[in-house]
Amino acid sequence: MSAEERVRAAVRDRREEVNAAIDEQLPVQRPEQLYEASRYLLDAGGKRLRPTVLLLVAEALTDVEPFEHPYRAFPDLGDEPVDVMSAAVSIEVIQSFTLIHDDIMDDDDLRRGVPSVHREYDVETAILAGDTLYSKAFEFMLETDAPPERQVRALDELATTCTEICEGQAFDVGFESRGDVTTDEYLEMVELKTAVLYAAAAAIPAVLLGADDEVVEALHGYGLDIGCAFQIQDDVLDLTTPSEKLGKQRGSDLVEGKRTVISLHARDNGVDVDGLVDVDDPEEVTEEAIDAAVAELRESGSIDYAREMAQDLVASGKRRLEHLPENEARSLLCDVADFLIEREY
Amino acid sequence: MSAEERVRAAVRDRREEVNAAIDEQLPVQRPEQLYEASRYLLDAGGKRLRPTVLLLVAEALTDVEPFEHPYRAFPDLGDEPVDVMSAAVSIEVIQSFTLIHDDIMDDDDLRRGVPSVHREYDVETAILAGDTLYSKAFEFMLETDAPPERQVRALDELATTCTEICEGQAFDVGFESRGDVTTDEYLEMVELKTAVLYAAAAAIPAVLLGADDEVVEALHGYGLDIGCAFQIQDDVLDLTTPSEKLGKQRGSDLVEGKRTVISLHARDNGVDVDGLVDVDDPEEVTEEAIDAAVAELRESGSIDYAREMAQDLVASGKRRLEHLPENEARSLLCDVADFLIEREY
Repeated sequence: MSAEERVRAAVRDRREEVNAAIDEQLPVQRPEQLYEASRYLLDAGGKRLRPTVLLLVAEALTDVEPFEHPYRAFPDLGDEPVDVMSAAVSIEVIQSFTLIHDDIMDDDDLRRGVPSVHREYDVETAILAGDTLYSKAFEFMLETDAPPERQVRALDELATTCTEICEGQAFDVGFESRGDVTTDEYLEMVELKTAVLYAAAAAIPAVLLGADDEVVEALHGYGLDIGCAFQIQDDVLDLTTPSEKLGKQRGSDLVEGKRTVISLHARDNGVDVDGLVDVDDPEEVTEEAIDAAVAELRESGSIDYAREMAQDLVASGKRRLEHLPENEARSLLCDVADFLIEREY
Repeated sequence: MSAEERVRAAVRDRREEVNAAIDEQLPVQRPEQLYEASRYLLDAGGKRLRPTVLLLVAEALTDVEPFEHPYRAFPDLGDEPVDVMSAAVSIEVIQSFTLIHDDIMDDDDLRRGVPSVHREYDVETAILAGDTLYSKAFEFMLETDAPPERQVRALDELATTCTEICEGQAFDVGFESRGDVTTDEYLEMVELKTAVLYAAAAAIPAVLLGADDEVVEALHGYGLDIGCAFQIQDDVLDLTTPSEKLGKQRGSDLVEGKRTVISLHARDNGVDVDGLVDVDDPEEVTEEAIDAAVAELRESGSIDYAREMAQDLVASGKRRLEHLPENEARSLLCDVADFLIEREY
């Protein structure tokens, strides 16, 4: 099996349990429309990659076989039960909240193949559904039964992560009107907007289960590394994957003038990135125009530059896992890292 | 001095310190526009009534003179220092977050005499500023230095409170399209939307300072009682205070068809509440039409009914304070309760 197949199996094996936990902790109750709207995106799908990472870290860290223990009463390093599933649900719920609010901000109509929440309901309901998921995530993180001092640390990680995600989104919005964004600024934005939630998913189970600071730190770094690699790979795939596989217009980042590691590298190497795909109507862009633009970005070494950056990050993330005992779950966490850059769409 | 004067003095005496604490904990940092927007309403004013309640509870509970101890290192019941100011800032920040998002939902142009955040900036920035304040409030509640088990309880109260505020707002929105709202449903909505934050402001310092469950419970009840009384009194004042004092059109709730304890009582007693002020253009309503409507609501006993309900709640709230030692701060908390229904606008 390839890393991708192993990761897909690991995710699939846990998805039902994660979904059942969401059902249990976030039932549709009064006021029904609020909770229906809050559940809408969670029910529409999603890979559950972040909760899977969280559960795998718990298994790797305590050196047990996958599924050896129930996630709701998972023995910590001192053999006391901790509900790591509640932490996994918390992270997934935060992810869902950010998607709902981001879709309002970007006025995106579709998400996970269904209308976005503010399209299916309305902007008011979508704001409120996001706000509800936000506080529910904190409630769920308080339901792990871990000792109080660990709960406080986990909550702190969660709160800081949420602040950082907001900062990342603010940087992203601010970049749209700036021509002089540097690669470092872009990477800082990606770390804040995308990678910190992977870092939280990897570090929080270690906190809750009583791991040493050094291990928590390493897992946090693993999450940051793979989160950044994931986003950079997304930027590469936007150029290199055929539209039909991508599920959207290939090269849409170029057409929309979105800054990426690739376009910033090209700009810094003398390419007129804003002139690469020069059309008035984004609908009218031809495959040939995209082909020509991609060829120029290959020529300038920009695509390889991004690809190598993602590979370096994945290698770094995998090295950090050496703080964990060697076992199947750790090996799956390595696969997750590899999968993020091996995937083709 | 009247209760109102004493409360205004108590608030004034603490306002500068609360503002300085907000400055300290929520500086305008990168990304600047996000933090400027987050600070915008906080800087525009606000009575700081909730943080004042929180600080007064700390003083009343530990039986010290007002200002005897610095709020940043306030001796708990075992004489260990707790930063109750950070908890006060947390509550004020939550209040500010809810105002920002509510103004988007209600499309209100003005707040505290200045443009609402989504008018001064834009909807995207306002959503994000609210989201940032949300997680910052949790960060601040984690900076009290209280023992971990108390922090966990305080965080839990905060998270639950936020969920309830969202539920209250959802009920409020849902009521607009329903003619059969009951008084009990309305009171449940008020409790969730408005009163729970007063309850958190009163109960959380008790949790952080190590009070008994019974005392925490009583203070929670005090907050709920005065919060509900506050809203019901608001509904009364909307009818009985001259427009120039109110700062908005008197009777605006009637004109807009908003349900209140008063209109629900009138409806249940045979008054055609929707026909009370029957104008096509809210701008065209005359003082005479409002006078006639108010006279009919007096006639049906609806205004007295609401006034008595508010008075009963205030009396109940004050009784709950008997769980605290008798001192100046407790007496000020009684004044806060009285002030909420004695005020004329």
